[in-house]
Amino acid sequence: MTVTRADVDRASGRIAGYALRTPVIEVEPGRWLKLECLQHSGSFKVRGAFNRMLGATPPAAGIIAASGGNHGLAVAYAARRLGVRAEIFVPEVCAPVKIAGLRALGARVVVTGAIYQEALDASRKRAAETGAVDIHAYDQLDVAAGQGTLAAELLEQIPDLDTVVVAVGGGGLVAGVVAGLDGRAKVVAVEPERIPTLRAALDAGEPVRVGVSGVGADALGASTIGRLAYDTVAGHVTSVLVSDEAIIEARHALWHDHHVAAEHAGAAALAALRAGVYTPDEGERVAVIVCGSNTDPATL
Amino acid sequence: MTVTRADVDRASGRIAGYALRTPVIEVEPGRWLKLECLQHSGSFKVRGAFNRMLGATPPAAGIIAASGGNHGLAVAYAARRLGVRAEIFVPEVCAPVKIAGLRALGARVVVTGAIYQEALDASRKRAAETGAVDIHAYDQLDVAAGQGTLAAELLEQIPDLDTVVVAVGGGGLVAGVVAGLDGRAKVVAVEPERIPTLRAALDAGEPVRVGVSGVGADALGASTIGRLAYDTVAGHVTSVLVSDEAIIEARHALWHDHHVAAEHAGAAALAALRAGVYTPDEGERVAVIVCGSNTDPATL
Ligand SMILES: Cc1ncc(COP(=O)(O)O)c(C=O)c1O
Ligand SMILES: Cc1ncc(COP(=O)(O)O)c(C=O)c1O
Repeated sequence: MTVTRADVDRASGRIAGYALRTPVIEVEPGRWLKLECLQHSGSFKVRGAFNRMLGATPPAAGIIAASGGNHGLAVAYAARRLGVRAEIFVPEVCAPVKIAGLRALGARVVVTGAIYQEALDASRKRAAETGAVDIHAYDQLDVAAGQGTLAAELLEQIPDLDTVVVAVGGGGLVAGVVAGLDGRAKVVAVEPERIPTLRAALDAGEPVRVGVSGVGADALGASTIGRLAYDTVAGHVTSVLVSDEAIIEARHALWHDHHVAAEHAGAAALAALRAGVYTPDEGERVAVIVCGSNTDPATL
Repeated sequence: MTVTRADVDRASGRIAGYALRTPVIEVEPGRWLKLECLQHSGSFKVRGAFNRMLGATPPAAGIIAASGGNHGLAVAYAARRLGVRAEIFVPEVCAPVKIAGLRALGARVVVTGAIYQEALDASRKRAAETGAVDIHAYDQLDVAAGQGTLAAELLEQIPDLDTVVVAVGGGGLVAGVVAGLDGRAKVVAVEPERIPTLRAALDAGEPVRVGVSGVGADALGASTIGRLAYDTVAGHVTSVLVSDEAIIEARHALWHDHHVAAEHAGAAALAALRAGVYTPDEGERVAVIVCGSNTDPATL
């Protein structure tokens, strides 16, 4: 199964009025930042969350999700807005500021497991017991299609866009972006060197498990690329890797040069340009997705 | 003398390609934030700085300015971009992060005087000696007209806008906004209770000196409204005052609810809505100017 532009168009219709149409700023000629960090709940994840919730019809048990943080925040935000009960499972690496944010949104939070996969297993067990609708962080059609709505917006915002640079964790975002662009712009898929889920899968010819560490782990810390994402993006993206140092540098530059507060994962795509692991051609029109701002601003 | 829409149009032409066209986000139906906090140098002040520098022809001595911080940063930024020498006088209340920013931009910085007026007097003496072009923080036609370009943008960005809510210090911004809107939307002029330069002038029928204190003092701390601003805006704005507590609350809300990092002065306009000192009518379409982000993010 793959995500298609038709899935994205359906999502755009559903989530209009719920997700924010995030702005782009042109920071130098031919270079744009798509400020998805200003999105409700602080990341693009709310697009997929709304699309999944508005597509399913949650029972009284409500919805359930597992997340390193941003997906959980997004699901909790969307659930509150739609008046649905939310239960969120998070691994122990989850930043305290994110757990506090979940609780403030009225979600029940269960902290369990060292990594994302363990929290996910626990959430599935629970969903089987309660009958709640599960919202996967990336490996679900409505979720990835929801994320793709930002690419559809980008095509409206920037005429003749050539390239979109985007971070990859479990791959829901990049799958949605590939579907949303539908061949009208190329996609550069950026991963931390220390969590190369997509690169490892492309090398192996199928999703494989990788180690999870480094500054992006709380948001990009899936241990395998989703099957849906792999099938959607293989052969349709340029895969590049960035060091933790490059991510940290890009995050500081976002604040000091552009006055944009982003989390590490939110700066990964920009890092690929700043560190020169992706070098656009002369005249290439490039949009960089700044995908999250759930961070302690004291660390900017 | 007053600022006119023709002055603003001339400015828009001059500064295109130098100042950023800053985005607006619709945070609820009929409520927009104009994110001037994302502007180059971190505030709208760069619009006036570019307009003045591109209008004058700076001699070898370059340009000179006095500023509580943001005007200085903007002038230093514009001077570096245009290859012009810059000398900036700042009062001792200026935040250390702002002084460091000025030096990083290559400006010569002179820290002198307890308040803005004293730094201004010293800068004028120096300009008379060196022949540098002085760029006033607000009371100069090209400066106020430059700030007004953001209002001209707003009219393009938001169809049928009713109201613009904007902070007032020395009044260059509000004068530019009144001129740029040219009667097409009404203007709510917001001041901290502890620095009511415009309100005091409206009460007295002419600019008068007020005390300067509170959380907005580093950016809104002019001790009188400029003559140009007074003549431009008297009779054309609704004047409201906000408490320091309301400004602090609005600044936190900008970060926690909207993921926007702003300084206190940048949150003053939003404070007027949140604290209910300005209550829009049913259906009124309101844009709030978030005018600056030069702040230590640890205090968000
Ligand atoms: C800020 C941010 N960026 C990027 C990603 C990666 O998204 P995906 O897992 O869909 O690849 C995430 C996932 O949580 C995120 O929170
Ligand atoms: C962030 C910010 N907002 C508002 C103002 C007020 O502008 P004006 O002095 O033109 O009224 C200033 C002035 O420095 C500022 O820096």
